[in-house]
Amino acid sequence: MSENQLSRIRAEAPLIHNITNYVVMNTTANALLALGASPVMAHAVEEVEAMAGLARALVINIGTLSPSWVEAMHRAAKLAASRGIPIVLDPVGCGATAYRTATALALIRSARPTLIRGNASEIRALVHADSATKGVDSLHTPDEASDDAHALSRAHGCVVTVSGAVDLIVAGDRSARVANGHPMMSRVTGMGCTASALSGAFLAVAASPFAAAVAAMAVTGIAGEMAAEEARGPGSFQMHFLDALYRLDDAEVARRQKILVA
Amino acid sequence: MSENQLSRIRAEAPLIHNITNYVVMNTTANALLALGASPVMAHAVEEVEAMAGLARALVINIGTLSPSWVEAMHRAAKLAASRGIPIVLDPVGCGATAYRTATALALIRSARPTLIRGNASEIRALVHADSATKGVDSLHTPDEASDDAHALSRAHGCVVTVSGAVDLIVAGDRSARVANGHPMMSRVTGMGCTASALSGAFLAVAASPFAAAVAAMAVTGIAGEMAAEEARGPGSFQMHFLDALYRLDDAEVARRQKILVA
Amino acid sequence: MSENQLSRIRAEAPLIHNITNYVVMNTTANALLALGASPVMAHAVEEVEAMAGLARALVINIGTLSPSWVEAMHRAAKLAASRGIPIVLDPVGCGATAYRTATALALIRSARPTLIRGNASEIRALVHADSATKGVDSLHTPDEASDDAHALSRAHGCVVTVSGAVDLIVAGDRSARVANGHPMMSRVTGMGCTASALSGAFLAVAASPFAAAVAAMAVTGIAGEMAAEEARGPGSFQMHFLDALYRLDDAEVARRQKILVA
Repeated sequence: MSENQLSRIRAEAPLIHNITNYVVMNTTANALLALGASPVMAHAVEEVEAMAGLARALVINIGTLSPSWVEAMHRAAKLAASRGIPIVLDPVGCGATAYRTATALALIRSARPTLIRGNASEIRALVHADSATKGVDSLHTPDEASDDAHALSRAHGCVVTVSGAVDLIVAGDRSARVANGHPMMSRVTGMGCTASALSGAFLAVAASPFAAAVAAMAVTGIAGEMAAEEARGPGSFQMHFLDALYRLDDAEVARRQKILVA
Repeated sequence: MSENQLSRIRAEAPLIHNITNYVVMNTTANALLALGASPVMAHAVEEVEAMAGLARALVINIGTLSPSWVEAMHRAAKLAASRGIPIVLDPVGCGATAYRTATALALIRSARPTLIRGNASEIRALVHADSATKGVDSLHTPDEASDDAHALSRAHGCVVTVSGAVDLIVAGDRSARVANGHPMMSRVTGMGCTASALSGAFLAVAASPFAAAVAAMAVTGIAGEMAAEEARGPGSFQMHFLDALYRLDDAEVARRQKILVA
Repeated sequence: MSENQLSRIRAEAPLIHNITNYVVMNTTANALLALGASPVMAHAVEEVEAMAGLARALVINIGTLSPSWVEAMHRAAKLAASRGIPIVLDPVGCGATAYRTATALALIRSARPTLIRGNASEIRALVHADSATKGVDSLHTPDEASDDAHALSRAHGCVVTVSGAVDLIVAGDRSARVANGHPMMSRVTGMGCTASALSGAFLAVAASPFAAAVAAMAVTGIAGEMAAEEARGPGSFQMHFLDALYRLDDAEVARRQKILVA
C-alpha cells in the first residue's frame, strides 16, 4: 500500500457515515475510532442526505435491513454519488434470501458504489442470482469467485473486494491478493463489516479506490494477526484487535503486509 | 449432559436464526460464534421466513420489541414450527409492561416454542398476568416459580428454563437443576439472552429439548465460573466469558457441571 | 460530590429507563450495571409510558433517531415529567443535521429535561440554530459554550453539562468544572452517551440535579483515568473502564475527584 495512508487518516480524521446493521454498529464505530477516523451512524430518511453530505465516505451494509432502512440507503447513496463522495457497499447475506439479493442489486444499479466488499458467496450471488449462501458465511473461496468479481467490477465500474483466507481485490482487469489475517477473525462477529467500514476510511484519503481497498484489507488482516498473537479466544481477540488498529503505523504495515499485485 | 454436544455443535456449526433485541445482538452473535455455531440476525417481514427456513434453530427474544418486529417473530415462528425447526422464546421483561406480557403469550399460543427461558419473574408473569417484574430483573428465585414452570410446560408442551443462582429446567413432570454460574453474570447485560441463544445451538444438535436446555445452562454457567476466576470486574468478565466458551470442551464440561436431575 | 452517592446507587439499584441509540445500547447498559444501577431499554410507543413509570430516571439519547422513536421519546418524557421522574436528554449530533436540532429542541420544549448533557458544539447548536457540528464530534471547548450553557439552563430551568477535556456543569448562575478524564475516552464510541446514562443513575439518588450531574462527570472521568493507566489502546480501555466503574467506591472518588465549583 502507499506509505502514508494511516498517517493521513489520523491527521484528517475523516467523517465516515455508516448505514449499517444493528449487530456491528458498535464494533465498526470503535474500529473506525481506533484507526483514527470519525464515525457517524444515521439512518432516518429525514436526515441521511444531510449527514451523507458532511461525510468523506458513505458505508452501506445490509446486514439487518428493512424497508425504511433500504430507502435511507438509496437516498444517502444518491446524494453521495452526486457529490463524488465514495461509497462502500457490504452485501451481507446476499444469496441467503431473495430480499437481500434484490436490495443489493438495486443499490448497485441506483448508486454505483465505489467499492463492493463481500465474501465469495455474497459476490457470487450478485452475479448469479441462483447461488446459495449459508446465512452469512461463505461456501466458496475468494479465488472461486474471481471471474464473478471481475465481471461485477467491469459491469459497474467499481472495485470489488472478496474476503477470505486470502483476500482478492479486483478493479476491471487489475487484481491484488492480500494474505494477511488469521482464522480467529471468523469467530468474531462483524470482522467483514469492519473491513468494509475501514475501507470507507481509506477511500476518504487514498489516491485511488483500488489502493484504498488493498490497504484496508492489509490493515484489517495485520491487526488480526497482531491480536491473534496475544488472544486466548475470541473475547480477548476483539480487545487486542482494537488496540492493534490504534497502535499500528504505516511503517509497521509496510513491514507486515503480504500483498501480491497481479 | 450427554457427552458430545459441544463437539457436535463445533462439527456441524448449525445456523441459528436470531430475532433478538438491539442491546444484546452483538453479544449473543459472539457467544454463538465462540461456542462454534453460526449466528444470523434477520428481522424484516420480507425475509424472516426465508431465513428461518435455512436455520437449525430459531431464537426469539422480545427485549426491545415493537410491532413490526412482533409480526416478524410470528411469521418466522410459524415457518419454523411447520418445518420442525426448534424455537426458543426469551420473554425479556415479561410482567414489566402489559405489551410484553401480551406479546409473549401470543407468541406462545401461535408458535408453540420448544423452549421458553426466562427469569422467575418473567416465567411467573406468563402464568399470572398480575405478577410484577422490576424492569428486566427478577424478584423471585427459580424455585419460587417451580409450580408455574411446570404449569407452563404442561400447558404448552414445551421445556421451561428458569434462570437464577440455581437454574431450574422443567419438561412436563421432569425437572433438573443446574448449580453452575457466578454472581458476576448479573452485572453484565445479556447473560440471560446469551443463555437463550446458546440453548438454540444445543437444540440444533441434542437428542432431546430437555437435554439441550440442561446442557445450555451448564455450559453458560461453567463459562461464567471460568470467566469469574480471572475477571477483575464485569468488563474483563465479558472477555473471559467468550474465551471460555471457545476453549471449553465436552470433557471439561463433564468435570465441572453441577446438574441435579429430579 | 456528596460522599455517599455511589453507595446509594449500589444499595438501591435504581431502574434507569433508556431510550437511546443503537450504537451504544450495550455500552450504556453495561456501564449502568457496572456502576450498580438497573438499566432497561424500551422504545415501543405501546410500552414506553408503562416502562417510564417504573423507572427512577429516564435517559433520552437521539444518536440514531427516527420518527417512531421520537414519538416514543415524547411520550415517555411526558409521563416521566408528570410523575417527577428526572429526565436526561443527550442531544447527540445536534447541529449536524436540522432533524436532530429540531428534535432536540422539541423534546426540550415538551418535556423539560432535568439535565441536558452534550459536547460544546451540541450545546451551542441548541442555542444558535446556525452553529455547525462535524458529525458527532465537537468543534468547541466547554468554556466556549459557557454563555450558551447558562442561557440554556436559565431558559429551561435545567442543569446543563458540557463535556470536554474539562467538563462544565451549569445550573442557572451556578457552575462547576470537573477536570477528571483522559484523552483515550474520545477514541471509544459512546463515552459521552455513557456519561449521560450514568447521570441518570446519579439523578435517581442525589440530593440535587446539580450534585448528580457533577458526580456523574467525576465518576466517569475517574473511571476513564483508571482505565487509561492500564490500557494499551481503546479495546483494553473499554474493558478496564467497566472494571473501574465496578470497583470504584465513594472514598476513592473523594480522593481522585478534581471538581472546581464557581
